[in-house]
Amino acid sequence: MAAKQKVSVGVDIGGTNTVVGVISADGVCLSKASFSSTEAPTIEAYIDRLADTIKQLLAGLSDIALLGIGIAAPNANYHSKCIEDAPNMKYRGIIPIGQMIADRIPGVKVEVTNDANAATIGEMQYGGAKGMKDFLMITLGTGVGSGIVSNGKLIYGFDGMAGELGHTIVIPNGRQCSCGRKGCLETYASARGIKQTAIELLAKPHDAVWDSIAREEITPAFVSQLAEKGDPTAKEVYEKTGWVLGLALANAVAYTSPQAIFLSGGIARAEELLFAPTRRSFNENLLFVYKTHEIPMLHSTLNAGDVAVLGAAALVL
Amino acid sequence: MAAKQKVSVGVDIGGTNTVVGVISADGVCLSKASFSSTEAPTIEAYIDRLADTIKQLLAGLSDIALLGIGIAAPNANYHSKCIEDAPNMKYRGIIPIGQMIADRIPGVKVEVTNDANAATIGEMQYGGAKGMKDFLMITLGTGVGSGIVSNGKLIYGFDGMAGELGHTIVIPNGRQCSCGRKGCLETYASARGIKQTAIELLAKPHDAVWDSIAREEITPAFVSQLAEKGDPTAKEVYEKTGWVLGLALANAVAYTSPQAIFLSGGIARAEELLFAPTRRSFNENLLFVYKTHEIPMLHSTLNAGDVAVLGAAALVL
Repeated sequence: MAAKQKVSVGVDIGGTNTVVGVISADGVCLSKASFSSTEAPTIEAYIDRLADTIKQLLAGLSDIALLGIGIAAPNANYHSKCIEDAPNMKYRGIIPIGQMIADRIPGVKVEVTNDANAATIGEMQYGGAKGMKDFLMITLGTGVGSGIVSNGKLIYGFDGMAGELGHTIVIPNGRQCSCGRKGCLETYASARGIKQTAIELLAKPHDAVWDSIAREEITPAFVSQLAEKGDPTAKEVYEKTGWVLGLALANAVAYTSPQAIFLSGGIARAEELLFAPTRRSFNENLLFVYKTHEIPMLHSTLNAGDVAVLGAAALVL
Repeated sequence: MAAKQKVSVGVDIGGTNTVVGVISADGVCLSKASFSSTEAPTIEAYIDRLADTIKQLLAGLSDIALLGIGIAAPNANYHSKCIEDAPNMKYRGIIPIGQMIADRIPGVKVEVTNDANAATIGEMQYGGAKGMKDFLMITLGTGVGSGIVSNGKLIYGFDGMAGELGHTIVIPNGRQCSCGRKGCLETYASARGIKQTAIELLAKPHDAVWDSIAREEITPAFVSQLAEKGDPTAKEVYEKTGWVLGLALANAVAYTSPQAIFLSGGIARAEELLFAPTRRSFNENLLFVYKTHEIPMLHSTLNAGDVAVLGAAALVL
């Protein structure tokens, strides 16, 4: 009889959808399912649905040995295994998700971390950061998340909530952030930040194409399309975004001195439109002692839809 | 025959003086010597002097077993064991100090790190951070240095130069820093920063006592004396210094989420004059997720003159 295949379950809880995957130790997705994160009327019903989905996926596979369940969720705390007041989740307050899953699937190891940390672990285990002991991962999307790997380990910190580079104040007394403070990186380098930068620049003379869309409808993808066609306003949006991001990343290097910086998320799809000005600002703002070697700015090599599931699954490896 | 006492040698190389101590494993200084860092005409002669001092101290003790030599020096790189272009050192360029000492004292383990990192290790091994796995140490003096401990280990980073919080840009396009960039924390929270803040505030009406001293002679101690007597300009100097420092420390928490922050160095001697406004700014600028527990701002508990020697000695434990 052949040895059973070792697998782990990765769960990526998003505000809209929940994705569950059964992942082999070498990072192959053997089975996958997803469901709405908002249909269940209560958190209890939602967790029942999640536990049932995990059980069904596992029941559909034979000759497997389950190593554990890893869960990635917004505002999730690695130490307490709770989701803590996630603004993008339907279910509010402190959700002891680790314990709730352990109650429904007894005897299985359950680990929990936030989505950006899971993406970071996925990149380290299966992606471009394989073999790196010191790197940063920045996720640029609706918000700006991050994961910091130092000496081969993700930094969780004293309270399990380390690595919130999106909420470092880059421009004191700058733009109002949803966290209540002003000038956070997220107010410049997220989808909302790009929209706001565009709106501010549209106070100047601009091409008529910008008036074909309501200001509130401006997306990074719309800006990218125009920038690729050479629109000067759109190019300036990415120049300004890159300037703030590059400054924030240069500061980040002075903390943990990474070998490389990975950028992922929807906004990183702008490619060189964003990367080129970010690199320029990064090099301009980097302390000279870190210039003895290149610190490459790299795309995540994993599919954005899979990275958090893979990383969550790797939590229990 | 009794077992030999295990000892290590700690060396603290400053721009002015070099201090050498033989330290027991429990942090007691058994023997100590110091000499000028600038008298030797060449780096070779300086290293000869240092090696001779170490040998003499060891020869004066009986029944000891040497575990190794730890060296703390400005701009020292943990990985390469070199001093890299230290602006405050008489001897310039890349100094392979680890190798130079190993050549003169063969068969002994030699470790090298920068002075702020050594102070951090000293605090962790023998001071107020004993038992803490996640903390920050900030040294406030001529410059602003730092050490970051995460998961029980000092962060050295990919290139051995991690932890330069003094050179994170807190105020973009702010004050000119000696590193060539603008707005670094060091330009506000160092001795030079405090002098500059005072000079800027003296453009406003002020007490005549300020005109009894040349602007260039203003020191943190002078400002502290006036502030303790209630001088409003002096108090405002510390208010402004604390505001920038508190902001920088709040940002630092979003990286590694420390249990506590230690402040050391000459400027920390201002005590509550500095600590109170720093705490206010810190709490104001801290992301809400880190407010579930208090992050105390603490004085280093070790004697400022000993901490780097103790920390350097602990490098080889």
